[in-house]
Amino acid sequence: MLNFTFKSPTEFVFGRGTEDQVGDLVKKYGGTKVLIHYGGGSVMRSGLYGRTVASLEKAGLSHVSLGGAKPNPVDSLVYAGIELCRKEKVDFILGIGGGSAIDSGKAIAAGVPYEGDFWDFYSNKAKPGEVLPHGCIITLPATGTEGSDSTVITRESDMLKRGMSAECNRPLFAIMNPELTFTLPPYQTACGVADMMSHILERYFTNTRNVEVTDRIAEALLMTIVRNGPIVLREPENYDARAEILWAGMLAHNNICGTGREHDFSVHQLEHELSAMYDVAHGAGLAALTPAWIGHQIPHNPMRFAQLAVRVFGCPMNFEDPTSTARDGQSKLAAFFRSIGMPVNLQELDERIKKDDIPALTAKVKRKPDGKVGWFRPLADADIVAIYESAFDWKD
Amino acid sequence: MLNFTFKSPTEFVFGRGTEDQVGDLVKKYGGTKVLIHYGGGSVMRSGLYGRTVASLEKAGLSHVSLGGAKPNPVDSLVYAGIELCRKEKVDFILGIGGGSAIDSGKAIAAGVPYEGDFWDFYSNKAKPGEVLPHGCIITLPATGTEGSDSTVITRESDMLKRGMSAECNRPLFAIMNPELTFTLPPYQTACGVADMMSHILERYFTNTRNVEVTDRIAEALLMTIVRNGPIVLREPENYDARAEILWAGMLAHNNICGTGREHDFSVHQLEHELSAMYDVAHGAGLAALTPAWIGHQIPHNPMRFAQLAVRVFGCPMNFEDPTSTARDGQSKLAAFFRSIGMPVNLQELDERIKKDDIPALTAKVKRKPDGKVGWFRPLADADIVAIYESAFDWKD
Repeated sequence: MLNFTFKSPTEFVFGRGTEDQVGDLVKKYGGTKVLIHYGGGSVMRSGLYGRTVASLEKAGLSHVSLGGAKPNPVDSLVYAGIELCRKEKVDFILGIGGGSAIDSGKAIAAGVPYEGDFWDFYSNKAKPGEVLPHGCIITLPATGTEGSDSTVITRESDMLKRGMSAECNRPLFAIMNPELTFTLPPYQTACGVADMMSHILERYFTNTRNVEVTDRIAEALLMTIVRNGPIVLREPENYDARAEILWAGMLAHNNICGTGREHDFSVHQLEHELSAMYDVAHGAGLAALTPAWIGHQIPHNPMRFAQLAVRVFGCPMNFEDPTSTARDGQSKLAAFFRSIGMPVNLQELDERIKKDDIPALTAKVKRKPDGKVGWFRPLADADIVAIYESAFDWKD
Repeated sequence: MLNFTFKSPTEFVFGRGTEDQVGDLVKKYGGTKVLIHYGGGSVMRSGLYGRTVASLEKAGLSHVSLGGAKPNPVDSLVYAGIELCRKEKVDFILGIGGGSAIDSGKAIAAGVPYEGDFWDFYSNKAKPGEVLPHGCIITLPATGTEGSDSTVITRESDMLKRGMSAECNRPLFAIMNPELTFTLPPYQTACGVADMMSHILERYFTNTRNVEVTDRIAEALLMTIVRNGPIVLREPENYDARAEILWAGMLAHNNICGTGREHDFSVHQLEHELSAMYDVAHGAGLAALTPAWIGHQIPHNPMRFAQLAVRVFGCPMNFEDPTSTARDGQSKLAAFFRSIGMPVNLQELDERIKKDDIPALTAKVKRKPDGKVGWFRPLADADIVAIYESAFDWKD
């Protein structure tokens, strides 16, 4: 186990009707004038926006609103939000909706007190110092942004998608009501499931030895998701299954399953370029890349993949040939993705993706400031090309 | 799943040499004059006390010290600590050592700014408001106090042992270096293992349905502890196994495995009176009561005990007779306790305990202010007597 620091200070307020506490929570954490930052019309249609405003007003707080956060949130809206907050003297950012509004809200919170260009934080040119206090109401279990130290923004000028991790990105509070996820369309629900599974797997595939407790927590989360994912697709208003998925999605990315170990995150790096170039859903992109990534990486440590196969997917261990067990796990994972309507290769993901695009995608992946792609077995250019090519028409 | 709020804001600084960061951490959290509160000579012998003072001084902080915290920490030392802190204008409490020094430090932190008797907090007469900021360096994985919202103190006048739970009891930081646990005697190590297992089991035995993610996290922790407990007894300086136990012990009680569900905690209530009356080690007392408690409670929900047996102890499920599987799990747990040198009944725990004491013990359990003993199947007087009697000479 490696030395680590773990701090997940967010107050998670979980359950039915909890959105009505938002006014009191903003007040508790010192907000007086709130930016409500959201995405499209779903928070209007569901009545969440109205209930949020009512709760803020009941607590004696004023607010301004900024909608329009889209999947793969973009820098232009962040600039608009920063300007609005400065003009209106906003002192608290409240993201409501899916991961995009909350990620975009985190960028605004960091950008308002910063004199330079907020993109500096996303291009490793600067670290955020003081940020505006921020909280959220999450309606889409997927990115884990409600508990994580991360935010991801796409720069529109060149469609470069970049993440930023810092302790100040952890929300002060996160309101999590499973009922708010009942109306999610099946495809979005499934993309969320794939995304949270990827957050766990990116930590699971590690070279660090003796990490039993985090391995087992990761497996606990994966087993929970694999069992409840199909239930929420079959019964969208099953409260208990939605609750399992919602809470597991937070735990998947607040790093409770990642302490004391090297992470990989190369699948995320490869996917970020896919969704930046084709605007595909992040979770679907992850599902489409993961089986091919696993196939490429099994030789690096077959036993680690066999452990996943045995413990999470109940595969029998082949003690004479662990690699065959590892491949059984790869098959089970791909079959699971298919069963929830996720693609398992790039052709299924989006027919606009062409084999000829692979060199351009690879070049964009390599443009990362730190240059390294993954830690489990770091990917050289040839590996990235091989994974994209294998993912293009991967089948079991 | 029940509605819940979860907030575990402590900054956990984990790994080799991390105690040297203590000065910087106290400073980061605003301390200038520190009470170092500790137990006996072990922190002196190990050099931890000296390194702590050196780190505080390097950070430009002054300190006063108060030793003497004993297992089952007592109110008289808390009163002494409160007086010392007021006199010396201490603004930060640092507990170093096992759970006792840290629990006692939490009581001091709550008592200093309070005008009344700090015991009010432990007798449900008052809730702590503002408390002095506090952090800790933990050297004994057991009580989980380094991450929990709890503290337990014994009133010497009548040996009444009472807990107090409040958010302000969560330390601002907890330094956790597995190396500091190398020198723990085997009996104390094993008591710690039993204590942390009990923290998990008290949450595991619940009537709340559809709590898969927390069930599986609880099982993850139990499996980790059951595998690594014997290793640390066999190889006291095995860093990786000590690290697993140390981190699992925190996770066992910061409530990450207890969100959204009713807890029981009746074994703790029965044990508190044992350790108050006979001054036995808390963990050993829990081990001595748990098999009898399970035997008494299996009829309430055999499947829940069978789940523990199958998932944690690898027992084959008897689908025709789940109660027999439940009993297999009870046997495996008792055998595990024996294997690490823990008692599995009261006679083994301490020969001073007499059957004639059971009515007095029962009366003390019932003196709890809220009157209720456990939630899984709340214990009436007759149940408490039956469990103590069964525990007296329990054998498999």
